Amino acid sequence: MIHPTALVSSSAKIDEGVEIGPYSIIHEYVWIKKNTRVGAYCELGLPTPLANEAQLEIGENSVIRSHSVIYAGSKIGAGLQTGHHVCVRENSEIAEGVQLGSRTDIQGDCCIGAHTKLHADVHVGKHSKIGAFVWLFPEVLLTNDPMPPSEGLVGPVIEDYCVVASKVLVFPGVKIANNAVVGACSVVKSDIPEWKLATGNPAKPACDVRILRMPGNPKEKAYPWRNRFHRGYPEEIVQGWIEQAQTTGESK
Amino acid sequence: MIHPTALVSSSAKIDEGVEIGPYSIIHEYVWIKKNTRVGAYCELGLPTPLANEAQLEIGENSVIRSHSVIYAGSKIGAGLQTGHHVCVRENSEIAEGVQLGSRTDIQGDCCIGAHTKLHADVHVGKHSKIGAFVWLFPEVLLTNDPMPPSEGLVGPVIEDYCVVASKVLVFPGVKIANNAVVGACSVVKSDIPEWKLATGNPAKPACDVRILRMPGNPKEKAYPWRNRFHRGYPEEIVQGWIEQAQTTGESK
Amino acid sequence: MIHPTALVSSSAKIDEGVEIGPYSIIHEYVWIKKNTRVGAYCELGLPTPLANEAQLEIGENSVIRSHSVIYAGSKIGAGLQTGHHVCVRENSEIAEGVQLGSRTDIQGDCCIGAHTKLHADVHVGKHSKIGAFVWLFPEVLLTNDPMPPSEGLVGPVIEDYCVVASKVLVFPGVKIANNAVVGACSVVKSDIPEWKLATGNPAKPACDVRILRMPGNPKEKAYPWRNRFHRGYPEEIVQGWIEQAQTTGESK
Repeated sequence: MIHPTALVSSSAKIDEGVEIGPYSIIHEYVWIKKNTRVGAYCELGLPTPLANEAQLEIGENSVIRSHSVIYAGSKIGAGLQTGHHVCVRENSEIAEGVQLGSRTDIQGDCCIGAHTKLHADVHVGKHSKIGAFVWLFPEVLLTNDPMPPSEGLVGPVIEDYCVVASKVLVFPGVKIANNAVVGACSVVKSDIPEWKLATGNPAKPACDVRILRMPGNPKEKAYPWRNRFHRGYPEEIVQGWIEQAQTTGESK
Repeated sequence: MIHPTALVSSSAKIDEGVEIGPYSIIHEYVWIKKNTRVGAYCELGLPTPLANEAQLEIGENSVIRSHSVIYAGSKIGAGLQTGHHVCVRENSEIAEGVQLGSRTDIQGDCCIGAHTKLHADVHVGKHSKIGAFVWLFPEVLLTNDPMPPSEGLVGPVIEDYCVVASKVLVFPGVKIANNAVVGACSVVKSDIPEWKLATGNPAKPACDVRILRMPGNPKEKAYPWRNRFHRGYPEEIVQGWIEQAQTTGESK
Repeated sequence: MIHPTALVSSSAKIDEGVEIGPYSIIHEYVWIKKNTRVGAYCELGLPTPLANEAQLEIGENSVIRSHSVIYAGSKIGAGLQTGHHVCVRENSEIAEGVQLGSRTDIQGDCCIGAHTKLHADVHVGKHSKIGAFVWLFPEVLLTNDPMPPSEGLVGPVIEDYCVVASKVLVFPGVKIANNAVVGACSVVKSDIPEWKLATGNPAKPACDVRILRMPGNPKEKAYPWRNRFHRGYPEEIVQGWIEQAQTTGESK
């Protein structure tokens, strides 16, 4: 399951069922858990002085696609899915079920909650905190320097179930609260309250997302999206969403 | 012509005159037609459940630059030119003479017409339809989800001879009609009629592109660009443009 | 120090102390100066008809990270630092101490002055001129075609000590003068005078940057940033800045 051209450190820990593609490099202090598949030309556990001898841990049943680079010193949960040419720097905590689209860049010291999905070309600046079940669409950029260049980096905070559409820029230290939705190309300069739709430059809260309906179906509420979109989530989580919707009386 | 370090499936079909660079991987169900050159670290015909055993066909005289990834199940015409780190997903139809700049991402189930040129970092969402002789400049993003996240993806339609300048975002399902020009950083939320210049957020049709003149030369019409810009197009096509301009009385 | 899987042309000049990572390719006409480290899967000196037999020169003590591509015909000073998946085209002059973030693309025929730092995903169009001690933040895009597509490419000019924040687009031929600061997501359509803060679309000069103060510290001037931010610059340069500030009476 390990391609003969792969270069795997003898001190790396490779669990059973792991596949490692041609020409990939696994450095020491890496632990790849069972049934994970690593594509071609990946480099995992790249050492850095910022994560001295710290282990890179990659959860079971993950898929890391070709040409991706993951540094030492991060802890990644089960079921990670990456696209191609992804880069994850050191000292990040990435929970289970996370998806990182092609060319996504996690710049280090970040937290990403469970089942959060980042599309292609998302750029997550150092010290960002992203909750669970978040969606970041292509070319979303989380910045962290309030007066560039400076030493006082403060990452944005994006809470659970938020949806941030394509090409949005989020200012340093800004908080987008639970269940908020940010429209495409917006520039988020100040905090967005929970359940708000925010759009524009600067992004202003416009309405409660729960009044939005699906295109072509005015009876179906668009948000919270968890009441209508379930593809790719574990069954027990979906079941919890369904029960919660029934309890709270949120209709589909 | 096939580098000894390249890994080429015995069931791939490699025509005469094909070059395959060091460390590249050619999977089964790939047909590379004659005189095509594949750079280093490319992976062609990557299998996916979304294109089960479907062939990847790459036309003759193509150039695929290093670190590029093309999935199984697409059909690409002659004379493809890619930059580096390009990604093309499954089930797309790409006509002859297409150019894909570095890091361009074709996300699958797309159509791209003949001699269309995508610059670097163009992101083409699933189900996009792009005509012939189109120009998409750097960081153009074609989106497809009208109420994210949802299952109802609808790609934009960009018709022949359109020019879409840098950093433009196009909304799902929007149509940019023949010969339209969209200014840099615009956000195209609704259809743009043919021959219109559109700019802004949201992009509004401003004027007919045929009234625009070249900078520093008020006698030379800027559009249709095919009357003044011919580099890189086949001679017989250019000849056709010249004759058409004479017939219709469009002056240079 | 040269990994056995690296493919190094016998006519390349590799100085002492150079490290070349696994699977990297060094073409002929390349000169890598002493103590430079090249990561895995890099391709240096890629030939192109646009730089026929012209040498690629890479200064000493440089670090070129994995999956990067640098064409023939550029001259790069000492202490280059690249991220991953970087692309540098032919015939560029890059001075000492330059930093190019991951996926940054220098499209050719560019000049970049000493100690200039480009973050991730910066796109520098052909014929751009960037001064010394400049900062370009993620997804800055320097364009060069005033009436696309055309043959009359004119790159922007960005002078010394400028700061251009994330997602800014700069129009062809525009000059951003010494010490100017451009706010995030701005679209720079006309020249910005020196020492000005400019923001918006189109970017308009708002105030002198020297009236800005650091967040949370109203006594500390934010600009010129060289009076407060020194990390990563050579000691003698920092000393010069300190002395200059004392001479001119610019207080911290």
